[in-house]
Amino acid sequence: MKLFKHAETLAVGDSLSWDAVLAELPFNADGLLPAIAQQSDSGEVLMLAWMNREAILETLSTGRVCYWSRSRRRLWRKGETSGHHQTLKELRIDCDGDTLLLLVDQQGPACHTRRSSCFYHAVRGEQVVVISAPQPDSESLSSQR
Amino acid sequence: MKLFKHAETLAVGDSLSWDAVLAELPFNADGLLPAIAQQSDSGEVLMLAWMNREAILETLSTGRVCYWSRSRRRLWRKGETSGHHQTLKELRIDCDGDTLLLLVDQQGPACHTRRSSCFYHAVRGEQVVVISAPQPDSESLSSQR
Repeated sequence: MKLFKHAETLAVGDSLSWDAVLAELPFNADGLLPAIAQQSDSGEVLMLAWMNREAILETLSTGRVCYWSRSRRRLWRKGETSGHHQTLKELRIDCDGDTLLLLVDQQGPACHTRRSSCFYHAVRGEQVVVISAPQPDSESLSSQR
Repeated sequence: MKLFKHAETLAVGDSLSWDAVLAELPFNADGLLPAIAQQSDSGEVLMLAWMNREAILETLSTGRVCYWSRSRRRLWRKGETSGHHQTLKELRIDCDGDTLLLLVDQQGPACHTRRSSCFYHAVRGEQVVVISAPQPDSESLSSQR
């Protein structure tokens, strides 16, 4: 936390060592941080998943996003079964280091329901409305956004 | 979870009762869900915070975003001391109900460092670079975006 407090005072373009920042990331009791994936060009928020130290390092070294699956309790290379990979454009860290923002280029739909984003339920008055449709298979397979 | 599984099959425009969805939200062991705040017009991801049931209900009824502060262990009406409120435009829920996306209109900077977004550290090679500057006081106070 001291490091992040110090960083508050830095000017645009100033930098810290990634190793020093990594050593100070306040992982939770399960060794995880929440990571928001945002499509880099459109700004669409795609999903939220979790990363441990290993997932962060693999993502940075390969350029392909790797999460930690809390249900399967193992590394989850996004798209490993669906083919719907995420290419990392930039990894950002918030003010106190406890949340990650991944700017990505999403291959096909991000959601397991084949919707572009996981956030397809909108609360509107007393109802929750479905606001997006699954992408057809063919469209998804040929999509190279 | 059954409700969210059912919702996967719904068409655009179909709806569920908010009361039924609220009853099925899978709050974590602390009674919380992560909530991403995104500026509704620009798409900028502003911050991630946490909401309990009460914070969600207050946010929907007042139209002003209220979180749960994990450090202070109380409701946190965003802007209550800084004046940097968030007006809710829409609350969205992800595919399995365990993350919220708040489309908001942010008054002034979202971050406690007076930066527009909390995500101002970018990992670039072996460095972490500061990519945005705090807003000056006067600019912030007169900002009515």
